[in-house]
Amino acid sequence: MMMPVNDPRAVGTGGRRRADVRRFAMADPGDVSGLRAAIDAGEIDPAAILAVIGKTHGNGLVNDYTRGYLRLSLAHLIAARTGRSAEAVMEATPFIFSGGVEGVLSPHYVVLSATDAIEAGEAPSLAIGLAFTPDLMPEDIGRQRQIDLTAEAVERAMDQGGMAPDDVRFVQVKGPAFGSADIQAAAQRGRPCVQCEPGKLMAYGRAASALGIARALGEIPFEAATAAALLQDFGLWSGRASCSAGSEVRANEIVVLGLSDAWTGPLTIGTRTMVDALDLGALVQLAEDLGLKPAPQVAAADAARIRACFVKCEPQRDGLIRGRAHTMLNDGDIDAQRHIRGAVGALVAGVLNDTALFVSGGAEHQGSDGGGLVCLIIEQPPAPGHPQS
Amino acid sequence: MMMPVNDPRAVGTGGRRRADVRRFAMADPGDVSGLRAAIDAGEIDPAAILAVIGKTHGNGLVNDYTRGYLRLSLAHLIAARTGRSAEAVMEATPFIFSGGVEGVLSPHYVVLSATDAIEAGEAPSLAIGLAFTPDLMPEDIGRQRQIDLTAEAVERAMDQGGMAPDDVRFVQVKGPAFGSADIQAAAQRGRPCVQCEPGKLMAYGRAASALGIARALGEIPFEAATAAALLQDFGLWSGRASCSAGSEVRANEIVVLGLSDAWTGPLTIGTRTMVDALDLGALVQLAEDLGLKPAPQVAAADAARIRACFVKCEPQRDGLIRGRAHTMLNDGDIDAQRHIRGAVGALVAGVLNDTALFVSGGAEHQGSDGGGLVCLIIEQPPAPGHPQS
Amino acid sequence: MMMPVNDPRAVGTGGRRRADVRRFAMADPGDVSGLRAAIDAGEIDPAAILAVIGKTHGNGLVNDYTRGYLRLSLAHLIAARTGRSAEAVMEATPFIFSGGVEGVLSPHYVVLSATDAIEAGEAPSLAIGLAFTPDLMPEDIGRQRQIDLTAEAVERAMDQGGMAPDDVRFVQVKGPAFGSADIQAAAQRGRPCVQCEPGKLMAYGRAASALGIARALGEIPFEAATAAALLQDFGLWSGRASCSAGSEVRANEIVVLGLSDAWTGPLTIGTRTMVDALDLGALVQLAEDLGLKPAPQVAAADAARIRACFVKCEPQRDGLIRGRAHTMLNDGDIDAQRHIRGAVGALVAGVLNDTALFVSGGAEHQGSDGGGLVCLIIEQPPAPGHPQS
Amino acid sequence: MMMPVNDPRAVGTGGRRRADVRRFAMADPGDVSGLRAAIDAGEIDPAAILAVIGKTHGNGLVNDYTRGYLRLSLAHLIAARTGRSAEAVMEATPFIFSGGVEGVLSPHYVVLSATDAIEAGEAPSLAIGLAFTPDLMPEDIGRQRQIDLTAEAVERAMDQGGMAPDDVRFVQVKGPAFGSADIQAAAQRGRPCVQCEPGKLMAYGRAASALGIARALGEIPFEAATAAALLQDFGLWSGRASCSAGSEVRANEIVVLGLSDAWTGPLTIGTRTMVDALDLGALVQLAEDLGLKPAPQVAAADAARIRACFVKCEPQRDGLIRGRAHTMLNDGDIDAQRHIRGAVGALVAGVLNDTALFVSGGAEHQGSDGGGLVCLIIEQPPAPGHPQS
Repeated sequence: MMMPVNDPRAVGTGGRRRADVRRFAMADPGDVSGLRAAIDAGEIDPAAILAVIGKTHGNGLVNDYTRGYLRLSLAHLIAARTGRSAEAVMEATPFIFSGGVEGVLSPHYVVLSATDAIEAGEAPSLAIGLAFTPDLMPEDIGRQRQIDLTAEAVERAMDQGGMAPDDVRFVQVKGPAFGSADIQAAAQRGRPCVQCEPGKLMAYGRAASALGIARALGEIPFEAATAAALLQDFGLWSGRASCSAGSEVRANEIVVLGLSDAWTGPLTIGTRTMVDALDLGALVQLAEDLGLKPAPQVAAADAARIRACFVKCEPQRDGLIRGRAHTMLNDGDIDAQRHIRGAVGALVAGVLNDTALFVSGGAEHQGSDGGGLVCLIIEQPPAPGHPQS
Repeated sequence: MMMPVNDPRAVGTGGRRRADVRRFAMADPGDVSGLRAAIDAGEIDPAAILAVIGKTHGNGLVNDYTRGYLRLSLAHLIAARTGRSAEAVMEATPFIFSGGVEGVLSPHYVVLSATDAIEAGEAPSLAIGLAFTPDLMPEDIGRQRQIDLTAEAVERAMDQGGMAPDDVRFVQVKGPAFGSADIQAAAQRGRPCVQCEPGKLMAYGRAASALGIARALGEIPFEAATAAALLQDFGLWSGRASCSAGSEVRANEIVVLGLSDAWTGPLTIGTRTMVDALDLGALVQLAEDLGLKPAPQVAAADAARIRACFVKCEPQRDGLIRGRAHTMLNDGDIDAQRHIRGAVGALVAGVLNDTALFVSGGAEHQGSDGGGLVCLIIEQPPAPGHPQS
Repeated sequence: MMMPVNDPRAVGTGGRRRADVRRFAMADPGDVSGLRAAIDAGEIDPAAILAVIGKTHGNGLVNDYTRGYLRLSLAHLIAARTGRSAEAVMEATPFIFSGGVEGVLSPHYVVLSATDAIEAGEAPSLAIGLAFTPDLMPEDIGRQRQIDLTAEAVERAMDQGGMAPDDVRFVQVKGPAFGSADIQAAAQRGRPCVQCEPGKLMAYGRAASALGIARALGEIPFEAATAAALLQDFGLWSGRASCSAGSEVRANEIVVLGLSDAWTGPLTIGTRTMVDALDLGALVQLAEDLGLKPAPQVAAADAARIRACFVKCEPQRDGLIRGRAHTMLNDGDIDAQRHIRGAVGALVAGVLNDTALFVSGGAEHQGSDGGGLVCLIIEQPPAPGHPQS
Repeated sequence: MMMPVNDPRAVGTGGRRRADVRRFAMADPGDVSGLRAAIDAGEIDPAAILAVIGKTHGNGLVNDYTRGYLRLSLAHLIAARTGRSAEAVMEATPFIFSGGVEGVLSPHYVVLSATDAIEAGEAPSLAIGLAFTPDLMPEDIGRQRQIDLTAEAVERAMDQGGMAPDDVRFVQVKGPAFGSADIQAAAQRGRPCVQCEPGKLMAYGRAASALGIARALGEIPFEAATAAALLQDFGLWSGRASCSAGSEVRANEIVVLGLSDAWTGPLTIGTRTMVDALDLGALVQLAEDLGLKPAPQVAAADAARIRACFVKCEPQRDGLIRGRAHTMLNDGDIDAQRHIRGAVGALVAGVLNDTALFVSGGAEHQGSDGGGLVCLIIEQPPAPGHPQS
């Protein structure tokens, strides 16, 4: 995606940018009333919307159409309010949705926008960068091409957002998923996919995206990010990557979040890795990092400062957790990702006192085996004597 | 179940009883190798086994046959080691199994046994009492007869275990479930059930058992425990009841646990109610009550003293949790009980550093709407200077 | 829905109408490329579209959002091609979608349109009538008001389509479904629903719609169509009703299909009831009625004349089928409706040599207990010597 | 399994054998009351039982424990009636159970037994042969060793049953399945499995068994039965193989059925392949082959002669069926095998007028891609003037 010179998102000369992050509940994936009201009340400039990340009602697997439904609904809303076409909105805006609100989780979407800062303020503050890869074909998924294109796109997004690799706290990628018909068609074109099972191909796609991110952030050596390592060498991972896949997109859509002096405003961001699905300590530590005073649960008044929370998790591959067996990988009725999202989501919700969490499974190479990460965006309280702009 | 005079479980003249609680993992519901090894090593006297409570691999719903499978497996093992028939073992021993090890939970069973105490020790200690109602027909489920018979049986079990109502910490009931064929047959006999849907009839059965317990423990007035209140007046509840249902039993099988001066030994028990599925505070408080020093997670060395943990939970009926929507009650793919078990189970596991938890859904009248309870049996460390017998 | 005088669907003075029925495959519920291409090729006049009936990818239960997704997608397409707003299209057009393409079934939608006939042709031919009830509240579902409003709307639709009750072959109703939040809200307004479980409330809604239809078609006495009979007296049923429910609509949307001398063209329609899910004979008989020469499977050349097939089915309530047990009603992993759709759908597909079938479960009062109906729209071959217009 | 000289199943000198096949319904996998009653009524000699093939209530996937439950239940019954131990019964008797009674299917088990013929009768008649491979490790599954051992065992079973390859009508294999813990353990022993996902490893096991059968029956060249072809070259298949896998067995247990002059009695057997899941013609043809007079459904009186029906089926791999899309391979909520069993089971039930069918998915190399087979055992009517013995 090339940024046109008159793009409203371009950074003003000499100025700083200010990120806004707003979270909306939805009754169903066609319910965009929250954003509509915020736009109509002048709280959000629809032309300033950079990306939307959301957690929808579906199963989060190949046949989850709630992601596409929300995407279409938001695109039509933003199109109507900006005068662009829905197609143009979809093409320019990463809509990154993950299905599955198991257990206590609550369906919602997070709208990321940016405006030129009017006045000075805290820095570094939350920074946002975007990029898209070219469209990917079924046969590209889980192959070197996806790794390379993702790494390059992450670099462009960092550059756009004014972040160096160490400034980055979270990289979200949404890449394409393909059903069995597409996979068969690729084979018949003489371009067989790395996997013929749709769910497994999704896993390869997440894995390739993760290694691309890890390479761009310098978490692994350049030469380690190879297709041969995918789903094989789980010692290679990113502690800041969150990758998902869905049939509603055709390119890897990338959102990079971090801290940058080029951005100002009250929002800040932090990330912690979880060593496994019971890593309550990491969650409490992250809340403490950001001044939320968990005891061990964050009080409601502090929880109100949470603007977004992104979690990545996965069942441990040896079928164990702290030495005892879990059953997630053998279950023919409930997919392993649905199990782990419900479990880790509840643990995070218990600490944060908040259930509108973006919890995504399929953490191949995103954290250590059985582990994952948690990223939190919060509004900082105004410094004493310095009223917040 | 009348206790014959020569019953090995009868309390010795003038003596005190000593409870033992042992937990075993299982690879599948036919795997009773853990108990077999413990019996063969002389660690458990098979004739002293009072009851077994377990969490099996199935869905925990009407068509969960893993409960019956484990029951048959254990009955044959105990029969072979005691010289009784498997049928006699099943008739005399409450085997209370709940299906569903969603998320991080681990399949296991807890063997409760009691022997005459050889020497003096701490008191009060963990006390156990058992009782069975007469067999229940489909048309009895969720009716006054089930409430009354349960209340009376709980009283007999308290009496047997040497506990007054205030001594009781936990009452587990496993009652019968019936499929659609049984329900239809009852209607054709002129005895229609209170509900024709099997899953809903299970809910009525749990509700009736819970109000019977609440009445026996004095938690609600005698006259409040009416069939009319079942699944209607959710202000009536027990804070110490855990009720489940399964097609493998035909009577309400009842195990009462508490503290009593008539029992000795290192085991103790505590219970806390959870106000909702995010009540992390209650879990931490319970761990503190029992000296497990959560920070907020219990350290592995202390977690090793956990002998059993029983949890009851349920989705909040208004579809909300702390003001945000959950989707558990509208999900046609995953039953609401599977959702909530996975969520609350993970929260408890996160605090206790233990995944072999008996987490059971269907908490109608067992805790407040959307809430539940947690009960923990632990081994107390020996008092300084007083080596443990 | 009042028909404005300049409505393109109004029957021309002295003239006859001609129905068209076109079926389109879809890759996902956002894929309306089939209809788009047909409109753009001039094969379908978007302003002549009366209704769309479709079978989408979801589970067909409360949390199936694929229906709403397809509705939004079609509404935007038709809006773009007619110059109306998407909201206006949704308000005026019955979009009747049922989720669940279990087994061999294929996702698709059927577009019903009508134009003034240009030249004389066969009669009677396929006739179409539409009507909407006023919006229904959660507390109206499964109550007398829904029965009465449905019966009255069916009468209006018959009138609009030029059909007497005996001319009617099929009545499709799509009514509203509500989730637990709506149901709770109704109770808090002092208007409790007839059922608090969302899935069960859907069943009440289908039942009320079915008795309304049966009354309007004269299949049951006027006074028999009472709320008290709903889900109780299964001896009351319609042999031509197909009712479904979904959260994406707020009124009962009604499409009546039959034969009428006021309509011309090559399309005809037939219906047969199935006595149970194994009623292969009824399927073969229907194919024979319409000249498809099943042997027992319809040959591909004849199957190509099928324009639409609507099936309604349901598990037998006593848990038996021809004396043997089925397990559909006791299954906690797969809903009974998903089971029966997959089974009956395969049987119909086997006879018709066609898998793009609208097979809908939840046949309460729509056919006898455990039975259902099959309705087929086909193109008749041109009469010898009379080339088809 | 070597047959000891005093084995009750050994063929008498100079005599012929007589097979009996009896089918029993079960309320749950612990319900063996049907066989118990037949034994106690003297209708079945428990010592003459050769094998039991059954369809149980579970999901038919890795975590289906209903197979093990029925196995344990039958073993204890047969042990009690023969004086052997349950372990000895399990070791000597193929108990081949497949989970999944989707749609109209009915849980049941088929008891195969054989006795020395007392008097002359029809020949050829139904013949039975058994064999076991040595125990298989996780790393053997889907490898050449499993192919070779299966082929050799099928040859032994044919020999035991007095059948040449062309006499064989049906070969049922039940082989071991392993969960993720076993698979991980194998890798840690330095013996990685061909697949680390449990469900996919089951597929490899079925595939290897199928090619072993095809080789033994001469359906494919000896040298074509290679591990490299498994799940790759779907042009290699057996038209008489039915393979399943489950965690309750450790060897490939093999039952060969066919026609042989060494056997007598009224039972006969036939098999047809289905080219795809809509091959209604093959089903009708098979019923005609065996004189059941389908029109197109077999009348109840003729259906009463059915003793067993075995079906194998599978979703077509390109996601199509007769050119239209199916969704079975993309469904994250219901496994593809559950879909196809429900669909094909209904089609077979519709023709045969019988729902107690052994319908098994996972037909890799068992029939062509998307196809399968149907095998029917029936009782022949007595020839006119020749009363049946």
